[in-house]
Amino acid sequence: MTRITWRPLLLTAALLSSTAPAWAGVPDRRPPDRPLGFGPATAITQAQLEARFDALLDPADQRAWLKQMSSAPNQVGSPHDKANAEFMLAQFRAWGWDAHIETFNVLYPTPERIGLSLLGPHPYTAKLSEPAVAGDATSTIRDGVLPPYNVYGGDGDVTAEVVYANYGMPDDYKELARRGIDVRGKIVLTRYGGGWRGLKPKLAQEHGAAGCLIYSDPRDDGFARGDAYPDGGWRPADGVQRGSVQDMQLYPGDPLTPGVGSTPDARRLAIKDAPTILHIPVLPISYADATPLLRALGGPVAPDAWRGALGLTYHLGPSTAKAHLTVQSHWNQQPVYDVIAMIRGASEPDRWIIRGNHHDAWVFGAWDPLAGNVALMAEAKAIGTLVKQGWRPRRTLVYASWDGEEPGLIGSTEWAETHARELQAHAAIYVNTDTNGRGFLEAEGSHSLQHMVNQVIDGVADPETRASVGQRLRARLEIAGAAPHATPPEKADAQLAAAGGDLPIGALGSGSDYSAFLEHLGIASLNLGFGGEDDDAGIYHSRYDSFDHYVRFGDPDFAYGVALSRVAGHIVLRAADADVLPLRFGDFSRTLDRYVGELHALVADMRKATARQHRLLDSGAFALVSDPTRPVRPPARESDMPAIDLAPLDRAARRLARSARAFDAAYARRAAGGFAMPAARRDELDALMAGMEQALTRPQGLPGRPWFKHVIYAPGMLTGYGVKTVPGVREAIEGRRWDEADRYAAITAGVLDGYRARLDRITAMLAQ
Amino acid sequence: MTRITWRPLLLTAALLSSTAPAWAGVPDRRPPDRPLGFGPATAITQAQLEARFDALLDPADQRAWLKQMSSAPNQVGSPHDKANAEFMLAQFRAWGWDAHIETFNVLYPTPERIGLSLLGPHPYTAKLSEPAVAGDATSTIRDGVLPPYNVYGGDGDVTAEVVYANYGMPDDYKELARRGIDVRGKIVLTRYGGGWRGLKPKLAQEHGAAGCLIYSDPRDDGFARGDAYPDGGWRPADGVQRGSVQDMQLYPGDPLTPGVGSTPDARRLAIKDAPTILHIPVLPISYADATPLLRALGGPVAPDAWRGALGLTYHLGPSTAKAHLTVQSHWNQQPVYDVIAMIRGASEPDRWIIRGNHHDAWVFGAWDPLAGNVALMAEAKAIGTLVKQGWRPRRTLVYASWDGEEPGLIGSTEWAETHARELQAHAAIYVNTDTNGRGFLEAEGSHSLQHMVNQVIDGVADPETRASVGQRLRARLEIAGAAPHATPPEKADAQLAAAGGDLPIGALGSGSDYSAFLEHLGIASLNLGFGGEDDDAGIYHSRYDSFDHYVRFGDPDFAYGVALSRVAGHIVLRAADADVLPLRFGDFSRTLDRYVGELHALVADMRKATARQHRLLDSGAFALVSDPTRPVRPPARESDMPAIDLAPLDRAARRLARSARAFDAAYARRAAGGFAMPAARRDELDALMAGMEQALTRPQGLPGRPWFKHVIYAPGMLTGYGVKTVPGVREAIEGRRWDEADRYAAITAGVLDGYRARLDRITAMLAQ
Repeated sequence: MTRITWRPLLLTAALLSSTAPAWAGVPDRRPPDRPLGFGPATAITQAQLEARFDALLDPADQRAWLKQMSSAPNQVGSPHDKANAEFMLAQFRAWGWDAHIETFNVLYPTPERIGLSLLGPHPYTAKLSEPAVAGDATSTIRDGVLPPYNVYGGDGDVTAEVVYANYGMPDDYKELARRGIDVRGKIVLTRYGGGWRGLKPKLAQEHGAAGCLIYSDPRDDGFARGDAYPDGGWRPADGVQRGSVQDMQLYPGDPLTPGVGSTPDARRLAIKDAPTILHIPVLPISYADATPLLRALGGPVAPDAWRGALGLTYHLGPSTAKAHLTVQSHWNQQPVYDVIAMIRGASEPDRWIIRGNHHDAWVFGAWDPLAGNVALMAEAKAIGTLVKQGWRPRRTLVYASWDGEEPGLIGSTEWAETHARELQAHAAIYVNTDTNGRGFLEAEGSHSLQHMVNQVIDGVADPETRASVGQRLRARLEIAGAAPHATPPEKADAQLAAAGGDLPIGALGSGSDYSAFLEHLGIASLNLGFGGEDDDAGIYHSRYDSFDHYVRFGDPDFAYGVALSRVAGHIVLRAADADVLPLRFGDFSRTLDRYVGELHALVADMRKATARQHRLLDSGAFALVSDPTRPVRPPARESDMPAIDLAPLDRAARRLARSARAFDAAYARRAAGGFAMPAARRDELDALMAGMEQALTRPQGLPGRPWFKHVIYAPGMLTGYGVKTVPGVREAIEGRRWDEADRYAAITAGVLDGYRARLDRITAMLAQ
Repeated sequence: MTRITWRPLLLTAALLSSTAPAWAGVPDRRPPDRPLGFGPATAITQAQLEARFDALLDPADQRAWLKQMSSAPNQVGSPHDKANAEFMLAQFRAWGWDAHIETFNVLYPTPERIGLSLLGPHPYTAKLSEPAVAGDATSTIRDGVLPPYNVYGGDGDVTAEVVYANYGMPDDYKELARRGIDVRGKIVLTRYGGGWRGLKPKLAQEHGAAGCLIYSDPRDDGFARGDAYPDGGWRPADGVQRGSVQDMQLYPGDPLTPGVGSTPDARRLAIKDAPTILHIPVLPISYADATPLLRALGGPVAPDAWRGALGLTYHLGPSTAKAHLTVQSHWNQQPVYDVIAMIRGASEPDRWIIRGNHHDAWVFGAWDPLAGNVALMAEAKAIGTLVKQGWRPRRTLVYASWDGEEPGLIGSTEWAETHARELQAHAAIYVNTDTNGRGFLEAEGSHSLQHMVNQVIDGVADPETRASVGQRLRARLEIAGAAPHATPPEKADAQLAAAGGDLPIGALGSGSDYSAFLEHLGIASLNLGFGGEDDDAGIYHSRYDSFDHYVRFGDPDFAYGVALSRVAGHIVLRAADADVLPLRFGDFSRTLDRYVGELHALVADMRKATARQHRLLDSGAFALVSDPTRPVRPPARESDMPAIDLAPLDRAARRLARSARAFDAAYARRAAGGFAMPAARRDELDALMAGMEQALTRPQGLPGRPWFKHVIYAPGMLTGYGVKTVPGVREAIEGRRWDEADRYAAITAGVLDGYRARLDRITAMLAQ
């Protein structure tokens, strides 16, 4: 589900270590560095282990598995979805893993009847289907392919005028209001992009719309980006992006079992009471089907930034003719099949290193999710071989291939909820991948893992340039920061890259299976994938996400599949075998300082913007610039801003900074000495360290959404995929809920103080 | 010729004076101020005169004149062009002016044969014509309408592959080179926008292209901006932008008589020796004709910013099939008819206030130039009535309606060159208009006029809002500066606007008839026009620039025509009747300081960018980020930057600042005393003041283009319309000609010292 083009690229980087082949003539700005968590002796053993692991990765494996697993529709409930799970189970077992399938029965609606037509003088009936295209073998398969739909939208039959609402995000409704356009009772036509899909019908519903359509404009992922499939990789006229519109900002997983696993005996909500299911009908459509609707729109010309690439003038509406939209679903229960494979740790079996990727798709899913899934399988095969050769991880490895990610992160969420207690007791790290492509590594995650990630990508070669993955990222940041219109953050990143420091990894929002681990259970997590040079956006969640597309426009020789196995595999192997867990809390503390700084800047900026808006309203400036032939009303007056008390956060961050510096120093001293300590103390130390991320959670969760318990990272209520850091405070400020901002500044500070106290205990143990 | 959408909007502003109707509820931030150049007593007389002038302006006049003058094609050499001149001559005389027509015979090529076709498997023959459209009466006229062409392109017959070069500007060729695309021997397909039209074929020629096409992309002025004509005002599929491609950055006017008037006895160059005529054929085309060529392009996908709004993927080429381009012109001499009308000044007949607008168009020219021309006529009629009622201007008025502006500012240039000596002796101010529309005033000019312009627009009501023209501009600047992505200059302007200070007027580049006055002769000039709410770009230089279009999408009730007459008329009347010429040199000095500051910033920025580029080249970063499937070569290495000596300019600007402050103070003291002084001294003072702008010229002119003599304002060699201030220095720096930059910093400083010495003489006279 993860990869979408408008999502900001979140980076991490480093440079050549001694094991990576050097890119000719490029000076090395970073001296090689002992891997975090290892002493001088174990570091050598580990380098040898990783070299053996690398040698066991064969791109031909990934190609063969991808072809087989994407050969038939494999969405939840399909025969091939189950077959893929069983195939993996057999493979894992053959590779020496202790594997099983864990099944959950969950609500999974599928379309019974969908329809869309334009009435009036130029009637049009939408095709709502994706034809076969030349050269794409699986596109001819019709058996078992569901029609394009948005799962968890409401049932409904609506005949109404159409209004165009751009990306359908909150600011778009403000612009419509300023132009006197009311969406109540209308069908809102939105385009993909600008924020998470599910927010579009949700916000349409909140604004009183009767229905919602979401189309793919060629500006965003079609011919305006590059040649359309099959000439190029971009979305053809009839391509449709399916996807979930479950209100996952409240909670992901089975809508009927919030917070608990969908086991046979779980208490289930009635469908009508499930708060994450929408009430209005919603349908995703192609631009071929959207064009007649757009042409039928009257009213003002849409603002500049709202216009797509279709050969017409975009108007806001309402339409001169009405449209008729029908969505009727089968509201069935379906099984999801999670494949779980374990190798028990030799000396710390109760510390688990978890690695996951989902296997269910919307149709064939060669890119999403199978490209990531076959990288995970390759790691598991190589690890199995290492075990057969006599190696055993210190800590326990858990490899998982989730089902039901596409409808709502269901397989991972139900498993995490079912095993919450064990996981909170044992899990140290969760490493996620999803789709994979060609180009640059995208890495996001818990910042205590930032240094390890930087070190790992210093030692993995980029297949195209033979520089390290980190060095290539560094070059990209430097080039971006040198662009004439580079933003201050881009310039700062470029400077960091040029100076050879660790590059920041992004924070996790949502959109893939790490959510339950990180945000519900408080397990330090990472999400990894290559991209930026491939053309995946154009087939995202369509019937054309196929093997044939992937080997032309994705990663033709699976070199980046192998690179992903290396990056994720090295992370897993280091986490598994480090003398002490490879976490550096100073990186978290410094990142937190940045977030707190951002909150202060946000308050200052909003205060200035509020004063400016009030001044402009009072002076009548908005009325003076409005063209009477195209009137735009003044914006609604923003509420006054009182003082906001971020001081508790400032103090907590300062205290944490001192403690984190002390930890980093004590850890480094211990590392130089090979972490020599009694096994029991090391176990205790590891247990405390593994639990650190949980110390960033709060049982009551975030305001209005108790499922999300992490007080530093959460998907934004109004961004969906996009992260909001320090969410209790940030979203309160952005939403102008001033009392809540003050309250959550104090609450978050309290959580951080608990985190610090635990960290001080660890530091004391290291100092012993 | 002036109005083009991609030209930056240059603003000036002020607020309500006591005479303007107040916009309800808007607080007045600027106290009324005595008009510059007037004493306490004459200020009252002047206010009464302006009120009488305003009452004589009738929008019905402008409507009737516009309809008649745009009723038939009126390009140079057409019967209706001559008829319009004769009609105006009769009008001016009837209104009491001393008027005549001055005729020049100039080179004016017209198409004999033009053709464009795509060869190969999908052949296409370009239409190269604009059909009639419903509701546009003159669009059915075919008699006397020339086919769309670019005047002063070369003759040629070329069959070659096509390459797409975006706007065809210098940076575009760098991008092509990085992608391995060579234009030598090819037909370069460019789109309108991004810089002056004439640079496109000139740069194509310099890069070795065999021919050049320029098309209008709907992204820039068609359906992507708004509904196409006749539904809306924007360019239809077959609309073509005609226009000159004469190399006017060398010199405008008749290509055969550089620097001298095209009188019968003038020495004329041979056509082949005229340096402003291109050698390769060039043709402007519609997007309907460009689409088959764009579809035929192979090669890489064009960079993001190069893609237009057509429903296709833009490629760079070369094309898979060749195109065949033919242009063959009649290289004839044609007469241009300048209408010149005068009213002799009562007390200072040797000081001339000149007001001009052209009357020739490309086809019917309702917008360009007639909307401005009828405002000028309305002023002349009202002034004639005032004279009949007994008023006489102190100084002499010259009203001119130029011919031949479209092919190359010919009528104004030849007249200015012919009368250079008289003009340099007598002319004090030149006030230009061209087209006119609806919305906000655009004002550019000599900065010694800035305060007068600010005061004038304080006293003219905006027709739509009943605020003053200045107040409306101020509101717009404040809103723009409050936008989330406002640039630092936008924020500074917003602050200035909110504080109620004078707003800066823009500097003049080229593109209308002020060029010869300001840049060749050194006469302080202004260019004025309303726009921003009208839809003129879509019919610019096409057959659809018609009366019917203008009254739907321009200024339907000619309220802005009357507002333009008021703004220009008040400026003329104040310049004519002020006790002493209304110039404030402190405004020029402060503006110069800004320009010198910009030069320092330019040097610093280029130095940083050069170092950055060298570092990125040395580290191999460009190679590391290049996608091997879409390779982009590293850019060419920029030359090293030595120290650049701007100190002479700094010192000259500092000295001038002191002198200008002394002048402003002395002038203000004299104004409070009603400028009481003997008539002869006042004449001498005025003569010195009128000549101040000439003190900014240098007989040798700018590097490589001696016709352009002003050392502060010039059109950019590589922008065409767009101004380059302190051009000798700025263009040398931008072109990395370091020695030339040093040399022209000293030369410009020398000119500024002469300007200052003259200013000191004036100040001494005021202090007497």
